[in-house]
Amino acid sequence: MGLERLPKTIELIEGGRAVRMVDQTKLPQELSMVEVRDWPTMVDCIKRLVVRGAPALGVAGACALAVHARGMADEAVRAGACDAADMLAELDRVAEKIANARPTAVNLSWGVCRAQKAAHAAARPDAADGRPGDGRLGESVPVAASAVAVAIADAVCREAEAVRDEDEASCRAIGAYGAPLLPAGSRVLTHCNAGSLATAFYGTALGVIYAAHEQGRIAHVYADETRPVGQGARLTAWELGRAGVPVTLICDNMAASLMAAGKIDAVVVGADRICRNGDTANKIGTYGVAVLAAHHGIPFYVAAPFSTIDTALREGSEIPIEFRRSDEVTDCIPEGADVYNPAFDVTPAELIDGIITDRGVFGKPYLFGENSFR
Amino acid sequence: MGLERLPKTIELIEGGRAVRMVDQTKLPQELSMVEVRDWPTMVDCIKRLVVRGAPALGVAGACALAVHARGMADEAVRAGACDAADMLAELDRVAEKIANARPTAVNLSWGVCRAQKAAHAAARPDAADGRPGDGRLGESVPVAASAVAVAIADAVCREAEAVRDEDEASCRAIGAYGAPLLPAGSRVLTHCNAGSLATAFYGTALGVIYAAHEQGRIAHVYADETRPVGQGARLTAWELGRAGVPVTLICDNMAASLMAAGKIDAVVVGADRICRNGDTANKIGTYGVAVLAAHHGIPFYVAAPFSTIDTALREGSEIPIEFRRSDEVTDCIPEGADVYNPAFDVTPAELIDGIITDRGVFGKPYLFGENSFR
Repeated sequence: MGLERLPKTIELIEGGRAVRMVDQTKLPQELSMVEVRDWPTMVDCIKRLVVRGAPALGVAGACALAVHARGMADEAVRAGACDAADMLAELDRVAEKIANARPTAVNLSWGVCRAQKAAHAAARPDAADGRPGDGRLGESVPVAASAVAVAIADAVCREAEAVRDEDEASCRAIGAYGAPLLPAGSRVLTHCNAGSLATAFYGTALGVIYAAHEQGRIAHVYADETRPVGQGARLTAWELGRAGVPVTLICDNMAASLMAAGKIDAVVVGADRICRNGDTANKIGTYGVAVLAAHHGIPFYVAAPFSTIDTALREGSEIPIEFRRSDEVTDCIPEGADVYNPAFDVTPAELIDGIITDRGVFGKPYLFGENSFR
Repeated sequence: MGLERLPKTIELIEGGRAVRMVDQTKLPQELSMVEVRDWPTMVDCIKRLVVRGAPALGVAGACALAVHARGMADEAVRAGACDAADMLAELDRVAEKIANARPTAVNLSWGVCRAQKAAHAAARPDAADGRPGDGRLGESVPVAASAVAVAIADAVCREAEAVRDEDEASCRAIGAYGAPLLPAGSRVLTHCNAGSLATAFYGTALGVIYAAHEQGRIAHVYADETRPVGQGARLTAWELGRAGVPVTLICDNMAASLMAAGKIDAVVVGADRICRNGDTANKIGTYGVAVLAAHHGIPFYVAAPFSTIDTALREGSEIPIEFRRSDEVTDCIPEGADVYNPAFDVTPAELIDGIITDRGVFGKPYLFGENSFR
């Protein structure tokens, strides 16, 4: 196994003054890291897919808010004063901007929200830092020193680090839960990149594959290239190859003939948002793969951290689908053709044979939000 | 209608001394014509997809043999002599080379074979040119003049022109038969390019669309980009746009979500080879579209000249599938990934709701070769 050859996708560095990330637009030609020092740059990186993948976006969202909180704290230290209510209001404003950078993956707003809650908790008088305050959140609380700002920034940075660490841990749990679903000698198809690069480390769908590979269950992986952005061709083929997992790249339209030829034993994909009933939004093309798998009697699994389940949504039609620029499709064809470019589609729950999470594998019928979880 | 804005895809010029074709590798950036003056160049053009599309390949095959026959006749005229048997043997040898340039489309060998038969017929003593000979085909027949060579070349050129003219006529018949299958306001999905560019003129699947458009039946056409070579993005979107048919380009993996959204009323595709039982080889990805169409209750039609039906083959598993170079897939991704690149797949007859030919529309069960045709 060559997992040690894979980079950490995203982490907070310099005490929260920067985020260090793999620049995923440069792969596979070049493995290079970028350092982001302010939230508008992070929003730009999220939009341009420098960082992408639902779980990694959760970490990116939390880290972006952490960098902003740390910047405000540093400024407060320089000024020798801080208004906690102003700082929280500013963080709330910025949190909303970050959360809206992309609409479909619920993890982005979830990660931002966790960091935001940590800020508010740290500003409460019962917070364990002993700083002065009148105890009423939202009211102006001038303090002699910048202690409150530093406390808030510390809390947000700790939370961003926790989101990152928990993401890697949850990927490893997903892998452990999912691997036994794949019989020895499995030939697995995956779509897009739900790999280490889509998470803090290890991956969701590819986490299942890495864990299964370690157990000798993987004969081969087929990676859909995943037009128009090519996450399968550029990222999945790259990271599986680097980790030593045998992989063959195919065009999206070749999956059906591989299935018909009996060369696919299971499909495992990631998820950007899962509804209460199990309907799952993931990279455009996932739905078609699910229909094809059902037609050929091939099990179709979704692997995602439990945080991907959005219990606010009853079914897939409520998931906002991001539409992207047409030049992503026409990049190889300099022509003014009309283009339809949704970035995601929704796979109805009835086509999903299992949802593999860090809290176990769920089967049909999916009744998220109606059980003891969350 | 802007059909007059579309070029003639391929034609014999200068009395059979050259073939003039659209260079389809240059589209959509540039509409440029190439002139081919010998059969090895034509074989190269066929392999490189300068000319492609099953019916156009039939014309190209016949034209390539015509150019070679004309060259031999010109040489015989210069030398003032000709050996008919040698000329036929040489044409047979070259015919095989041309027919094997690509394996899947039956039309290529069919077109070559027609030209080849015309040569043999012209060399027979009952041929109406009154040239001397001993009447036994295959025996050396030296003649004082080059009359026999010219007669053979004339016959091959006439046959190549007939193949071309019949192809356009059969496309118009396919259009006339197929258009009534599409209700007014139809939104049609097509895969690859079975258009005017894939035929002498007018097209098979797009012939149905052009005829239906003229009858006011077409609301919109969605064109699969058709990775890896992009015939849909480069050719179908170009020719429909040029002909004034409203078209939107999509990535192959987006068709399923359009179907789920109720935006596709019918699928029409071309064919490279059709077996006796109706199993149909066409551009890779066609099979997947057929499965998706069946899943969504959308009619799926194949449009092809009757010559595409290969009654020598019982079912799809007997069709040879061409595998192509991996760099077609990795062109945008300079990386040494393992690649699977079949150019075609086979759609089983049960997924095909109608086969639209120049001899009418056939439905299930398909019993080609067992009826009065051919």
